[in-house]
Amino acid sequence: MSSMSSLFMKTPSHANPFHKTPINHNTNKPILTRVSTRVIQPTTTRGVKTRVRCGLIEPDGGKLVQLVVPESERDIKKRVANDLPKVKLSRIDVEWVHVLSEGWASPLTGFMRESEFLQTLHFNSLRLGDGSVVNMSLPIVLDIDDVQKDRISGSNSVALIDSNDDPVAILNNIEIYKHNKEERIARTWGTTAPGLPYAEEAITGAGDWLIGGDLEVIQPIKYHDGLDRYRLSPSELREEFEKRNADAVFAFQLRNPVHNGHALLMTDTRRRLLEMGYKNPVLLLHPLGGFTKADDVPLSWRMKQHEKVLEDGVLDPENTVVSIFPSPMHYAGPTEVQWHAKARINAGANFYIVGRDPAGMAHPVEKRDLYDADHGKKVLSMAPGLERLNILPFKVAAYDKKQKKMEFFDPSRAQDFLFISGTKMRTLAKNKESPPDGFMCPGGWEVLVEYYDSLAASDSGRVPQPIPA
Amino acid sequence: MSSMSSLFMKTPSHANPFHKTPINHNTNKPILTRVSTRVIQPTTTRGVKTRVRCGLIEPDGGKLVQLVVPESERDIKKRVANDLPKVKLSRIDVEWVHVLSEGWASPLTGFMRESEFLQTLHFNSLRLGDGSVVNMSLPIVLDIDDVQKDRISGSNSVALIDSNDDPVAILNNIEIYKHNKEERIARTWGTTAPGLPYAEEAITGAGDWLIGGDLEVIQPIKYHDGLDRYRLSPSELREEFEKRNADAVFAFQLRNPVHNGHALLMTDTRRRLLEMGYKNPVLLLHPLGGFTKADDVPLSWRMKQHEKVLEDGVLDPENTVVSIFPSPMHYAGPTEVQWHAKARINAGANFYIVGRDPAGMAHPVEKRDLYDADHGKKVLSMAPGLERLNILPFKVAAYDKKQKKMEFFDPSRAQDFLFISGTKMRTLAKNKESPPDGFMCPGGWEVLVEYYDSLAASDSGRVPQPIPA
Repeated sequence: MSSMSSLFMKTPSHANPFHKTPINHNTNKPILTRVSTRVIQPTTTRGVKTRVRCGLIEPDGGKLVQLVVPESERDIKKRVANDLPKVKLSRIDVEWVHVLSEGWASPLTGFMRESEFLQTLHFNSLRLGDGSVVNMSLPIVLDIDDVQKDRISGSNSVALIDSNDDPVAILNNIEIYKHNKEERIARTWGTTAPGLPYAEEAITGAGDWLIGGDLEVIQPIKYHDGLDRYRLSPSELREEFEKRNADAVFAFQLRNPVHNGHALLMTDTRRRLLEMGYKNPVLLLHPLGGFTKADDVPLSWRMKQHEKVLEDGVLDPENTVVSIFPSPMHYAGPTEVQWHAKARINAGANFYIVGRDPAGMAHPVEKRDLYDADHGKKVLSMAPGLERLNILPFKVAAYDKKQKKMEFFDPSRAQDFLFISGTKMRTLAKNKESPPDGFMCPGGWEVLVEYYDSLAASDSGRVPQPIPA
Repeated sequence: MSSMSSLFMKTPSHANPFHKTPINHNTNKPILTRVSTRVIQPTTTRGVKTRVRCGLIEPDGGKLVQLVVPESERDIKKRVANDLPKVKLSRIDVEWVHVLSEGWASPLTGFMRESEFLQTLHFNSLRLGDGSVVNMSLPIVLDIDDVQKDRISGSNSVALIDSNDDPVAILNNIEIYKHNKEERIARTWGTTAPGLPYAEEAITGAGDWLIGGDLEVIQPIKYHDGLDRYRLSPSELREEFEKRNADAVFAFQLRNPVHNGHALLMTDTRRRLLEMGYKNPVLLLHPLGGFTKADDVPLSWRMKQHEKVLEDGVLDPENTVVSIFPSPMHYAGPTEVQWHAKARINAGANFYIVGRDPAGMAHPVEKRDLYDADHGKKVLSMAPGLERLNILPFKVAAYDKKQKKMEFFDPSRAQDFLFISGTKMRTLAKNKESPPDGFMCPGGWEVLVEYYDSLAASDSGRVPQPIPA
């Protein structure tokens, strides 16, 4: 079990039953224990001990943006915020402040101004001052309504406050511009059909204006849900990869329970990277932690399931880092997969695994998938600003009835394979039936059954609200 | 009058009453007469007389694509086409073959394959083999239905035939892929509202597949409408600009009658370019000649009006080239204006004039303009692949009641100005009322009145069908 601890490095929450990591009380961080460590000898330059850098991929724009003010300025900023016009943030807004504050969206320094918004909608990329191009496919914007706009009037800054009216951040050098919701939705999703989860949650009822500017975030965003210790920032992830002396980092985005097909894919990716000559490829297993649609398995249950999968030894903790990606989910397919990939560059990943229909969903109105299953990986491989990232297309894994385990699909013996869809998996778990042996580790499966049990127990199966920020 | 002739250089149609140009019977081209000509001395290289090139802007991809087969191969290609599966072209399809055949869409060599289609929809640009990027914002695609797809089956090439079943082109190395119409419309227009003229005409009822490939066009596309001589290809335009020794070419896209506000803008642009140090800036006055919506003034009437405007001396024929841009119109605002600009690069223009709400229209369902009036020029100025093009934003001209002429709007004496909208102009012309003196030259206005008269005479005002291909 202790090996599991090496997967996490955040300030531990003692309330969390999974936390088993010894703590360094100087740093208040868990001590990372590893079976084997390739020691990097510190070198001395001008009398200062420096650490050899592993040469991770550079963040977009060359420098990781970090927008949380130093602790020493926190009180001053709170007082400044008190005197400014206020904009109340929704849960999703706070998630975006979190994303921006840690530099996942580097080089963005705050909510988009109009020029960034337009480039995002039309080109899925931003041109920087030096002429270089970074990817940016999803609008990261903050809406306000007419009343809020009037209240802001001539002010150059606003305070962003949470649902308790506590100041979260200050937005400086603001720019207010029109929020054409129809155009935003059409260009982001390639449809305007009603029933897009993010659009319904965060756009349709939103204000008719957007407010952009530069963020000063008053303190690190925390959720106090027992999972904060999993929420490593890009800077913390980079530090971890360097500590582990990773010479390749491959990211796996997920928002579903991990089954053995995923595990096979991840271990096989590592094998391929070793074959390519990398000495120490590290997996970033990176479940999405922000807004998800109501019928997705909630983050807390997914994290329980991921932990069981790791405890059961399906993945090797030695070269796996599990962390939560704080972004909300758009379900915008080929547009969104670029964001998922781009954000992971900023966290130090230079390889990105992409599967069938990434960030896709069923069409909200028509009986078909919203996106062509292959468009995600095609668009990703051609996306401006992602040229530095190595795209690793997903091989299709299925249940091999002969070998009784998940295996890469072999069309020459198609009859041996069974495809178990997410829907099928959910139905089995809901009915407390077992999937075929070898589909998912038993501990992980139990978590799923427990989750659907909890649904059935509470309010005749209604899905609980996602965790508030 | 003879000075007008210098605006045109195509093989003349003697049926056209406006043609007054002497013909060089060796080349069957009009002899270009100019008041003053800056003579370029021919130089001799290796015994061959060469012309000094004026150094026009390079076409996208470095080389102007030209897809019409040599005359000597025409008959062979017709026979080849006869033996291939056939795809019948609509009028708009033929317009696109025209556009592609002359290299307006360079470096495209035919209807888009899926990778080009996806890049167009998502990035408004194409990445070339050498890593460079060219702009491409509108899908130039050919749809087929299930029956046609089945008929093509395993063939590598298809013949494209016109409404008379005559072969127009051969499409080689074909790729057939899905035509997601909803996604195409949403990403191109930023709306899926019913009533978009191009979508209704060419997409909604189109086939569920797209077919891409490399075009061999059997002969130059002609319309036999008396206007072919105005349809200069990018290559012919470049030749003309070089003959005129242009050191700057500024393009003005239009699909409406020219009034004196436009003329003021164009002459003022030339003045600014001269101030910038250019010695001979030439205007490309470039009305769009392909599909337009039913309530636009048809091409033939617009050309009559443009000719009157030129005859009346509103623009200087010495430094103006009038030609028809063969593209169909999408009315896709900020997305389409990029296409309009990009195509003009291929024709040699290095300056592009952009106005308020370019390629825009009223929202087909809601009571508002479809696009923000400023987005066109903003998006254009940021568009990938258009960095080489100088964008010249339109100054607002209005009728100055004091000076009794069109003048750039001066907000310090706003009360002196009268804005005459297109709707207002149409209403006046329909009612045979005159606009204020100095709004449009009398000859041009008469053409408009005549046009609306012809509408009223024919079938109680119903708008006639656009000219067939």
